[in-house]
Amino acid sequence: MEKIRVGILGLGTVGCGTVKILQDNAGLLSDRIGASLEIVGVAVRDLSRRRPVALPPGVLTSDAWELIRDPRVQIIVELIGGIEPAREYVLQALDNGKHVVTANKALLSQYWVELVERAERNGVSLMYEGSIAGGVPLIRTIKHSLVANRIHSVTGIINGTCNYILSRMFMEKRPFQEILVEAQEGGFAEADPAMDLDGIDAAQKLSILVNLCFNMGISYMDLPFQGIRDLTLLDLEMAEEFGFRVKLLASAQRKGSTIEAWVHPTLVPVKHPLASVESVLNAVYIEDDNLGPSLLSGQGAGDLATGSAVVADIVSCARDILSGAVERVPVGGSRLGAKGEEPPRLALDTVSEFYVRVSARDQPGVLSTISGILGENGISISSVIQRGRETEAGDGVPIVMILHEAPSSKMTSALARINALEATLGNGFLMRILPGQEIRWQTP
Amino acid sequence: MEKIRVGILGLGTVGCGTVKILQDNAGLLSDRIGASLEIVGVAVRDLSRRRPVALPPGVLTSDAWELIRDPRVQIIVELIGGIEPAREYVLQALDNGKHVVTANKALLSQYWVELVERAERNGVSLMYEGSIAGGVPLIRTIKHSLVANRIHSVTGIINGTCNYILSRMFMEKRPFQEILVEAQEGGFAEADPAMDLDGIDAAQKLSILVNLCFNMGISYMDLPFQGIRDLTLLDLEMAEEFGFRVKLLASAQRKGSTIEAWVHPTLVPVKHPLASVESVLNAVYIEDDNLGPSLLSGQGAGDLATGSAVVADIVSCARDILSGAVERVPVGGSRLGAKGEEPPRLALDTVSEFYVRVSARDQPGVLSTISGILGENGISISSVIQRGRETEAGDGVPIVMILHEAPSSKMTSALARINALEATLGNGFLMRILPGQEIRWQTP
Repeated sequence: MEKIRVGILGLGTVGCGTVKILQDNAGLLSDRIGASLEIVGVAVRDLSRRRPVALPPGVLTSDAWELIRDPRVQIIVELIGGIEPAREYVLQALDNGKHVVTANKALLSQYWVELVERAERNGVSLMYEGSIAGGVPLIRTIKHSLVANRIHSVTGIINGTCNYILSRMFMEKRPFQEILVEAQEGGFAEADPAMDLDGIDAAQKLSILVNLCFNMGISYMDLPFQGIRDLTLLDLEMAEEFGFRVKLLASAQRKGSTIEAWVHPTLVPVKHPLASVESVLNAVYIEDDNLGPSLLSGQGAGDLATGSAVVADIVSCARDILSGAVERVPVGGSRLGAKGEEPPRLALDTVSEFYVRVSARDQPGVLSTISGILGENGISISSVIQRGRETEAGDGVPIVMILHEAPSSKMTSALARINALEATLGNGFLMRILPGQEIRWQTP
Repeated sequence: MEKIRVGILGLGTVGCGTVKILQDNAGLLSDRIGASLEIVGVAVRDLSRRRPVALPPGVLTSDAWELIRDPRVQIIVELIGGIEPAREYVLQALDNGKHVVTANKALLSQYWVELVERAERNGVSLMYEGSIAGGVPLIRTIKHSLVANRIHSVTGIINGTCNYILSRMFMEKRPFQEILVEAQEGGFAEADPAMDLDGIDAAQKLSILVNLCFNMGISYMDLPFQGIRDLTLLDLEMAEEFGFRVKLLASAQRKGSTIEAWVHPTLVPVKHPLASVESVLNAVYIEDDNLGPSLLSGQGAGDLATGSAVVADIVSCARDILSGAVERVPVGGSRLGAKGEEPPRLALDTVSEFYVRVSARDQPGVLSTISGILGENGISISSVIQRGRETEAGDGVPIVMILHEAPSSKMTSALARINALEATLGNGFLMRILPGQEIRWQTP
């Protein structure tokens, strides 16, 4: 049986999952590919570290360049993560004519155009199903199943850590900090959780989705993102009272020739299919011109979930090699610079309904001052809830408002002025509100 | 720009959707393919019929054979439906070395082995994403995204008509017959709804899934199927009381070296993700060795939803042609006769918990007789609800029981004996109960 030779860079969680699947499901993979996948080498930094997978003698190496230069290796699998040296490795592997499979969202979200351009120039594949929502067949669905469709919007829960924390806060009615500590102990949050909690991880993934869905070339740094650190149990309870669940959403929506894209804590109508996606699950809701809405959901991360996405990409490259296919599918869905359709540009401002929570001093006229500021910014109020009196702790009286549609720039500057008021505690908190798409989902 | 030439057989609902997408999204498709798709001809039975799409002069033809023989045509798209002449057309197109795209579930579910064998022998593609749940990227996900995974179970709502009727019965608390009539008037059910209501349509689709997921070669006639005709509003209400929703499910599950597969009205735990899939939506829940559970859902049918699945398949064939790929992916996921893994066989009997409703005469000892028959078949009762007294209409007193796990053969023969009792009305109704998988879905 013919052999396809693979070199793997990195043997962390996803690397071990990838190796385990290649080993455990070797028979099944040969049946499906018509060839066997051989791991020629796995490059690691520390050869002596104990790992949960066993490799034949001589496969483990500390020299990544050796694999990248090895003429036998046909596919390089980059699972190191981070920017350097991953970027250098990937670019050289592409230049050496090897197909590259990566799960590196940080790299893709910062160097998209360079990487895509390099793969195209060398006529090889660069595949990245594992970079977003490992257990959800997202990239392949967009590139292949939706190839005939014009995507209107893509909105998802694509950070498992945040969803886990929000789900447990809601279910157990316990505060953010307590759940975070337990999540860290249980392995559901990193020791340094900043990338997840501040929305950076979700923004990185969203930038890849934007580039893929709309034939663009943005970096995640072009996107507005806000995380969940300032969210309180009160916000979840208020949201529930208004008929919503709170989720950290990443969303990109076509509006004419622009794309409105953002990562933000968001009120999701309880009947919307994203509202009931709990715990570490990821889910993505897509609307396009032909399908209407569709939903893909599953495990967002994990050694085997992401490993299986990586192996699926390896198989795709192997099938190209075996079938003689050259440049079969553009890396980014369309070829760079394809101009049958003018790519849209990123909107500078985005419009949404908003939820605002302000902690106010218990003194007369506060609400009138706040609503005055909103009014001056052209923002009108849909509902207000103010309950109780200020306690001796001096943490203010929470005022919660649901606001009608407004540009986020107006909303942000209104909130800055409200935060600056003597009569507030300066910690006003903002969430977006997802329109009631449940109607389209649940009725014919 | 290079052209890929397509011949289409049939211009009904899906045919028109396919043509519309090829026309409306031509620019976007060229960007993504790097070539244009040209419709060389569309074969129809009646040239004079008015249709919602406009074609250039000379494209419409009444001679399907002309397209199948035309050496310019590289891809034949079969959208006629039914067995003959579709089967003859497809086989000849494959023999003529053309790739074939079809959405014909009846044909695939009855002639799977013959069709797959013929495509393999001629080294061409046979693609069928549109044959199941048009708006759900199901076939491609199983063949490509899950290529490295061993599927344990696939369970879905894959008949939109039944789901629409069950949803409306439940929401509006109205009987089957009333909703069916309105569904027919609204175009959500066929004038002759037998294929849908009796579970045949779902069984056809399930047989394709079984062959694809487990490398088998069954026909839908090998599968047990039951539809929703005998289901009453009372069953939906009772199910709700026990914490379930009622859905017509198609399910295939690996048990050792066998596959338990069936189509049946089923009680789904309310927290299971399939429970909240409403109206004409389709959804499929897959469990495998690497991902755990994942869910795909979207529109099940419609001109554009299924049309977009057909065009995605056309694009895949076009990409093979343009890239020079030959025999890139086996038609059925694995090549016929691949033996790295021994394919499982269909189980003759399947085990489930059951819901039973019996209409009994209002006389002493009935419940004892019924439970005696169940006991003799080794079936034990988990709960019983019997309410009210028989009315003058003489339609009996409903007794509803939830039963512990039992082989369906035992259950069926017990029900036959119960139906034969003088003390019952002989119309006992059976549903399966899906185990509480919501636990795995909702907690980490």
